[in-house]
Amino acid sequence: MRVSLIARNSGLTVSPGLRERVRRPGYLNRLAKAEDLAPLFKNDDYIGWSGFTGVGYPKSVPTAIANHVESNNLQADPSTKKKFNLFVGASVGPEVEDRWARLDMIARRYPHQVGKEIAKGINAGRIEFADKHLSMFPQDLTYGYYSLRKNHGDPTKPLDWAIAEATAITEEGYIVPGASVGATPEILQSADKIIIEVNTLLPNLEGLHDINHSFVPPNRLPYVVTHPQDRIGLTAIPIDPDRVVAIVESRHPDNTGTNAPENAESKAIASHLIEFLSSEVDAGRLPKNLLPLQSGIGNVANSIIGGLADGPFEQVQVWTEVLQDTFIRFFDSGKLAFATATSIRFSPEGFDHFYAHWSEYKDRLLLRSQQVANSPELIRRLGVIAMNTPLEVDIYAHANSTNALGSRMLNGLGGSADFLRNAKLSIMHTPSSRPTKTDPTGISCIVPFCSHVDQTEHDLDIIVTEQGLADVRGLSPRERAPIIIEKCAHPDYKDILKEYYDRALFECLKKGSAHEPHMLKNALKFHINLEEHGTMKIKNWD
Amino acid sequence: MRVSLIARNSGLTVSPGLRERVRRPGYLNRLAKAEDLAPLFKNDDYIGWSGFTGVGYPKSVPTAIANHVESNNLQADPSTKKKFNLFVGASVGPEVEDRWARLDMIARRYPHQVGKEIAKGINAGRIEFADKHLSMFPQDLTYGYYSLRKNHGDPTKPLDWAIAEATAITEEGYIVPGASVGATPEILQSADKIIIEVNTLLPNLEGLHDINHSFVPPNRLPYVVTHPQDRIGLTAIPIDPDRVVAIVESRHPDNTGTNAPENAESKAIASHLIEFLSSEVDAGRLPKNLLPLQSGIGNVANSIIGGLADGPFEQVQVWTEVLQDTFIRFFDSGKLAFATATSIRFSPEGFDHFYAHWSEYKDRLLLRSQQVANSPELIRRLGVIAMNTPLEVDIYAHANSTNALGSRMLNGLGGSADFLRNAKLSIMHTPSSRPTKTDPTGISCIVPFCSHVDQTEHDLDIIVTEQGLADVRGLSPRERAPIIIEKCAHPDYKDILKEYYDRALFECLKKGSAHEPHMLKNALKFHINLEEHGTMKIKNWD
Repeated sequence: MRVSLIARNSGLTVSPGLRERVRRPGYLNRLAKAEDLAPLFKNDDYIGWSGFTGVGYPKSVPTAIANHVESNNLQADPSTKKKFNLFVGASVGPEVEDRWARLDMIARRYPHQVGKEIAKGINAGRIEFADKHLSMFPQDLTYGYYSLRKNHGDPTKPLDWAIAEATAITEEGYIVPGASVGATPEILQSADKIIIEVNTLLPNLEGLHDINHSFVPPNRLPYVVTHPQDRIGLTAIPIDPDRVVAIVESRHPDNTGTNAPENAESKAIASHLIEFLSSEVDAGRLPKNLLPLQSGIGNVANSIIGGLADGPFEQVQVWTEVLQDTFIRFFDSGKLAFATATSIRFSPEGFDHFYAHWSEYKDRLLLRSQQVANSPELIRRLGVIAMNTPLEVDIYAHANSTNALGSRMLNGLGGSADFLRNAKLSIMHTPSSRPTKTDPTGISCIVPFCSHVDQTEHDLDIIVTEQGLADVRGLSPRERAPIIIEKCAHPDYKDILKEYYDRALFECLKKGSAHEPHMLKNALKFHINLEEHGTMKIKNWD
Repeated sequence: MRVSLIARNSGLTVSPGLRERVRRPGYLNRLAKAEDLAPLFKNDDYIGWSGFTGVGYPKSVPTAIANHVESNNLQADPSTKKKFNLFVGASVGPEVEDRWARLDMIARRYPHQVGKEIAKGINAGRIEFADKHLSMFPQDLTYGYYSLRKNHGDPTKPLDWAIAEATAITEEGYIVPGASVGATPEILQSADKIIIEVNTLLPNLEGLHDINHSFVPPNRLPYVVTHPQDRIGLTAIPIDPDRVVAIVESRHPDNTGTNAPENAESKAIASHLIEFLSSEVDAGRLPKNLLPLQSGIGNVANSIIGGLADGPFEQVQVWTEVLQDTFIRFFDSGKLAFATATSIRFSPEGFDHFYAHWSEYKDRLLLRSQQVANSPELIRRLGVIAMNTPLEVDIYAHANSTNALGSRMLNGLGGSADFLRNAKLSIMHTPSSRPTKTDPTGISCIVPFCSHVDQTEHDLDIIVTEQGLADVRGLSPRERAPIIIEKCAHPDYKDILKEYYDRALFECLKKGSAHEPHMLKNALKFHINLEEHGTMKIKNWD
């Protein structure tokens, strides 16, 4: 019924490329044009997309919906305005996500965001957004936690629509994703109607993915993975073919852009870290080939992985969320034995190289769903070494990963807390300072008290900046503060931070409350000064 | 060698009770008197004890060491002073732990504390303490993270000594613990020398425990548990008998004291919660017998479990850290099918009843190590419903579990974050206010900004006070604040909290930073007012 409603009699010609990719012939009868589907999406619809960190997302249908909204000027009038509830594993290409945000088409967005326009919409109060640990979002979606207040459509289905990119469709009608898995399996499982965008520009990536079924308690089973290369699932995402209401051929590439370039700071941080890992190997606390590595996004992550490609460790394994360009170098160096992630976020040039040399990589790589890639169970079992960048760390090793000055959403939490809470070694790396408009070191990344806490003092082992590395394992808060200040703070802030700690300690000892000494009156003074004077350089603590 | 050093030729008579409990005869040659062992403990020694939440800890030897220190006035002189590094899974009886703290015998204490004297020592700067998630402490101990700076003794052993209580010893020399497991397996595994206190006053609890081997990455295996009653290990803790340097007979009971009594507030909270769980069952988001429950310590936990004993749910399962007295009622009601924990913390009367009716309980109960009981892997797989008490929760659902006014350690973190991060339903329950010396509602447990963050906004689903229940699943920070204030805040604080949120929202919208609206200048004003004026009731936000 649904099928006929949408795409029967479409009368479109099936291209040879599409016919080759779609091995379930029945789907070809549901071929549609994106622009014909666009008007079907209603205000307040709950929509899930495939995709993660800007790859593997649907391009044609979301673009067609935006075109439809824009060309008909729908947003000008409350009676025609369309705002959607959008659920995607992580961020996707700015040409769709940021465009939707700019057109004010997003009422609600979970569980992650990266992008200028979407952050603007969130901070302006137009988009309801909340960070959720990326490992938890897919399960919470299937639990119905994001549709508690949805009052239309099938009550058993959290989403009205799923729009998923495929690079192939199997005989069973299952979906072979693009270069990410993310939350796509659970989004497809949760949707009333499914639209598949078959991307015939990308290669058929069948064999790259490991897709396991997502069970709900009390019927969950262990993830039987003891090594990054262990396969526990299928090569495609199982779906109920009856829920596929349309397929669309798409020939748009993933819109990734270049990776953040390394600089002297990021190289210095990487060098401290590699030295530290070597010393852990020497002390017998890590095996010679380390333990599986997780590495975030950004230039420091690039420098670390680049450093490892030239580094002393052989047969290294990677258990991470996203692979960036430097992983290509790491693979090519022969030092990277196996990598698993939920997404490959290469630059366009990186993807060209990767797809051209596909046969060299395909047996050393597996993409999993974010529920598995970020699962506490596996991160802890494997003893992952986790490395992520915060906005700021405080002197007791709490970290802020998301909100500038406590209130302004910058980047989402992502999987940082999945990894840092469960890793064998939990490492945060950041430049010791950042520039403001008026002061090249106006922001200290080491602060007395975080203006927002995403990672707690109970979660971090190592803090590293270009200044040095603080190993806080086994230390009390009173022992941590002097070491973090001494090793990690920028010289412009060392003395004033020391003075904060000394005075807080003195005051709190007097009161018998010196477990984690603070002067509450001054705890956020760095931040208040930044807001008022464009720099965290305060005159004094009085 | 070590054996002869300590306890050969002790010439002590073996009591019949002891002979019955110790099935490995070789150990009886190592029988010693606690007071003869006491002088062997040297300043700066690293010592681990068995025990968890005041049960299953060694009583004789720690007391003898305290006696030795006190009667010889050792602490009066720096040259004779003895301060030890003490590692125990959680808190233990005040007659040993608090006494050690009062005598200034504790240099360092991990990973948990509860107790007046020990908290005093921590807040006075005499004891170095840090909270660590209880699931992580045992593994971090075996990794050597707590002995990085230890510079004496066997470098491969993180601890110089383990002192463990046993209720029996097997033919292999393995230890059958008392009424807790905690971190005892890993403490025994990490110790150079082992002293066993065989407690012949307690019944032989063989069969109550499920002890699995603790592997270290990269050699870890899944915990093959899919139901609270699944057994994955042995009934005793394996140790190397050669490391047992002495055994001591002990006849001291666990010093637990009474459980916190219920009151009108705790009953109101329990009633809100049980109503909520019922509505989740009705909505099909929970099975009729719920999912395994975790419940903290204290009067609210008691009221909840008491409420469940009289409640609508049958065949309930429990996956928790500690069982309190009301669990006896829950068992006896026939509604509790099976419970697993790492410790049984009954009152003395509770224990009397429990041991007298042992045969009725023993097949419905299993104690596991805290690494397993609190493991993210199992909490998430089983879909646990987690319920814990914070000191304060903020309007965006961050919670402070540990530090009053940000600095003063009150109670340790315990397993709260293990459970709340990974549960299917993460619930925090607290009275909406607490009294100060001068104001019966001087402390609001709902605050604008937590003065210390142990649980982040990304971790909590439900906040409940005697005022009502806020369900924040799927809500953005801006949606959470009005609901938390409306449902949970004490009437004395509702208006002033609403005003904070409204003004923060207004200011942040103006600045384009309204994801999680705060006025940084006022964020800690409640706390500063409490410090200065004995109440959080501020005049205004100007």
